[in-house]
Amino acid sequence: MTEKELKKILDQIKPLDRVFFEKAQAHLDNLTKPKGSLGRLEEIAARVVAITEKLRPQAARKRIYVFAGDHGVEEEGISCFPREVTAQMVFNFLRGGAGINVLARQVGAEVLVVDVGVDHDFQGISGLFDRKIARGTRNLARGPAMSRKQAIQSLAVGIELAREAHRDGVNLLGCGDMGIANTTPSSAITAVMTGESLEKITGKGTGIDPERWRKKVRIIRQAIRKNRPNRNDPVDVLAKVGGFEIGGIAGLILGAASLRIPVVIDGFISGAGALIAAGLSPRVGEYIFASHQSVEPGHRAILKALRQKPILELDLRLGEGTGAALGIGIVEAAVRVLNEMAAFGEVSVSREVNQSIEK
Amino acid sequence: MTEKELKKILDQIKPLDRVFFEKAQAHLDNLTKPKGSLGRLEEIAARVVAITEKLRPQAARKRIYVFAGDHGVEEEGISCFPREVTAQMVFNFLRGGAGINVLARQVGAEVLVVDVGVDHDFQGISGLFDRKIARGTRNLARGPAMSRKQAIQSLAVGIELAREAHRDGVNLLGCGDMGIANTTPSSAITAVMTGESLEKITGKGTGIDPERWRKKVRIIRQAIRKNRPNRNDPVDVLAKVGGFEIGGIAGLILGAASLRIPVVIDGFISGAGALIAAGLSPRVGEYIFASHQSVEPGHRAILKALRQKPILELDLRLGEGTGAALGIGIVEAAVRVLNEMAAFGEVSVSREVNQSIEK
Repeated sequence: MTEKELKKILDQIKPLDRVFFEKAQAHLDNLTKPKGSLGRLEEIAARVVAITEKLRPQAARKRIYVFAGDHGVEEEGISCFPREVTAQMVFNFLRGGAGINVLARQVGAEVLVVDVGVDHDFQGISGLFDRKIARGTRNLARGPAMSRKQAIQSLAVGIELAREAHRDGVNLLGCGDMGIANTTPSSAITAVMTGESLEKITGKGTGIDPERWRKKVRIIRQAIRKNRPNRNDPVDVLAKVGGFEIGGIAGLILGAASLRIPVVIDGFISGAGALIAAGLSPRVGEYIFASHQSVEPGHRAILKALRQKPILELDLRLGEGTGAALGIGIVEAAVRVLNEMAAFGEVSVSREVNQSIEK
Repeated sequence: MTEKELKKILDQIKPLDRVFFEKAQAHLDNLTKPKGSLGRLEEIAARVVAITEKLRPQAARKRIYVFAGDHGVEEEGISCFPREVTAQMVFNFLRGGAGINVLARQVGAEVLVVDVGVDHDFQGISGLFDRKIARGTRNLARGPAMSRKQAIQSLAVGIELAREAHRDGVNLLGCGDMGIANTTPSSAITAVMTGESLEKITGKGTGIDPERWRKKVRIIRQAIRKNRPNRNDPVDVLAKVGGFEIGGIAGLILGAASLRIPVVIDGFISGAGALIAAGLSPRVGEYIFASHQSVEPGHRAILKALRQKPILELDLRLGEGTGAALGIGIVEAAVRVLNEMAAFGEVSVSREVNQSIEK
């Protein structure tokens, strides 16, 4: 994909038409319940209508892409887990034993695993999407994590998978990540794109101690000073302080928005991807549902920047798309309300009476 | 059921054994994820283990009882909907077209509808549990809503249904309500049991205007002054300012706790039932999962009194058990994590490394 082709995708992302929100609300108000009584489920339902431009959208086919990649910065020792765990968890995903498999199974979502940059030779193993750009990024503390060309390539991976989902008739998309040390590039992206202080947005990742946390902050500060990512050029930010899986997620979001597929994003890493996507096209925010509020402090800054209110607050910090799977369950609930609830006209239930009271 | 028999049920409710929490957490910590990274799902899972005293509890069989009853206070005109809507919605439940049917279907929970006091002759209609105590309560603004005997009877209905669920092998219970005007008795119960001010805890119910809201507060104040419910005698509170469906819910919670079945409670009305249950046996709190935080302001006071943190915050105010259905989905997710995730020993994923960092 060239930068010109990327620009073309961005141009295909349209603002949502308010008429569809109104039509959806009119239908919701005619269902056998007090007006507005399903709260945020009604908001979600109306937005799915506006995204899909279908008055009765479906949620039968759900898919979560889990993007996996390694990170050069892992060599700095800022994670509790060694780099090999990225590949080990990819095998765990393929065997169906990871958290994402369990939670996606419950909501009936497929899990498709994408190797966009894992430092392991999977030798064409069945079930894994081989889109490897390199065997991990370079250490962002010492120079750019990847080339600009690689950054565009990672976006292209996600865009292509959104197209594939569209061809397969997927109604709801989710995204997730796997990559040891990837809260470090995500914190860097968040700092650059939101302008928040590093101390405020850098978290404990998989559970590091205070000493290692201070080192992590120092490494991220060094990375930003050395690479000077340009906030007004999100591809530059992705290239200099990002990761391949973060680019894949950003691309999936852009592709989904261009094809009018609602996309339920996971936590902090997916949020960093969403920041890159929203930097490229501010309109994507309307196509996104933020599944949950992660424990990672930077996630709050991301959701604020994206003007997203999380669907769930369950103190999750696992990644993989686990929050997205739970969020997909709630978005599906909203869609089912639209499709399955009886309307006042169909059954004999009295409507709300006039508000004037007898005194 | 006599008061002595009720006392016997209360004696059967045991405090949870901390050993089961420890065993559950040890298992959770051995699953292929960073320790604690599934946040509240882990807390929920551990509590289900402690409630059921099973290290691998199941969530295959789920059931929601919807208790329906009418209210004498409806004649004061403090709801947007006329009394007939209670019976009309019962028909809607039986046909499967209401919000609760849609959301319960998604999570695979049965919906069983219990007429505990609807002002309608259903003539033995198929699918409805006929446990009618009377055709609605009396107007609590003018005297006690029901007799003490009727209050005990409503508790007995719930207890009996919990036993039935236990016989049927139900793993997870939910409760919900239908009863036009029932936020009024629920507000009265909440005021009496929590001591919070009426203005603070009385809400707009199905959506009343400020004038009608002031009338509602006035009516509840009058009811409490006239009936003088005794906070230290929850059966007295239920009888004087409660409702049949609220008693049914309280009984279901007590029965479930005595039989070690986790019970996911819905919103404000179910919360009022839980306050009565917790008044009778403070231990029931540990057996309850609060599915969501309702828009009704009194619900916050209830959850505080019950020391419950809601699982979801979706601004719901429909009742029927709709929040419970969504909450059951999350509790099931927690149970599935326990049962389905791979452990470190089973697959080759490296554990967290020592926290000491190389300098």
